[in-house]
Amino acid sequence: MFAKMLQEIVEKTSGGVGAVLMGYDGIAIDQYFQPVDDVDLQLVSVEYANILKEIRKTIDVLGTGAMEEVAIRTSRFYVILRALGPEYFVALTVRSDGNFGKGRYLLMKEAPRFLDALQ
Amino acid sequence: MFAKMLQEIVEKTSGGVGAVLMGYDGIAIDQYFQPVDDVDLQLVSVEYANILKEIRKTIDVLGTGAMEEVAIRTSRFYVILRALGPEYFVALTVRSDGNFGKGRYLLMKEAPRFLDALQ
Repeated sequence: MFAKMLQEIVEKTSGGVGAVLMGYDGIAIDQYFQPVDDVDLQLVSVEYANILKEIRKTIDVLGTGAMEEVAIRTSRFYVILRALGPEYFVALTVRSDGNFGKGRYLLMKEAPRFLDALQ
Repeated sequence: MFAKMLQEIVEKTSGGVGAVLMGYDGIAIDQYFQPVDDVDLQLVSVEYANILKEIRKTIDVLGTGAMEEVAIRTSRFYVILRALGPEYFVALTVRSDGNFGKGRYLLMKEAPRFLDALQ
């Protein structure tokens, strides 16, 4: 079920190449990836889980409110990470010429459905 | 001069509360902060320098292109960080009900001016 939700998000986002539902421990619950030359999207997701864990720790220390979303833009890709409660997050990778705003919107819109299904 | 550029970005962004030009070592070159209750924006910037360093390291390992921008959204604030070459970055903090898109646009637009002045 999650795989289908992830696939829909990727396919509705112009330039979308992959999405993964993951725990902060770096273990994926489900994922949908399109093939991308010379980049291991699975590895990318695990590394971003580590980054997100660091960011969450920092935000807790700073007292600037609960972490909701992190977006990272490189010359080749956008990665949008959306927190789903204390244990999980969903990450979407979009080519840098793709529709970042649409991907961000879809993750925000689908977050409650992911959260419900994770209960 | 930098302080004036930073102040302009903060004042032109609805909900903008502070901006800082900083090295990855966490040392600020210049900054402009409006007072915010119970949050030490200076400390926030230093912590984000550490996060950004981690993200840059990860991106280098992954080979997904050069880091350009990181945006972190919590329930209270957006922080938008824009890389300025290998040594510096500029960070803008915006209230979560402020204009994230405008802030992002202004940082992108002003990045070449910062880079020129840093040479």
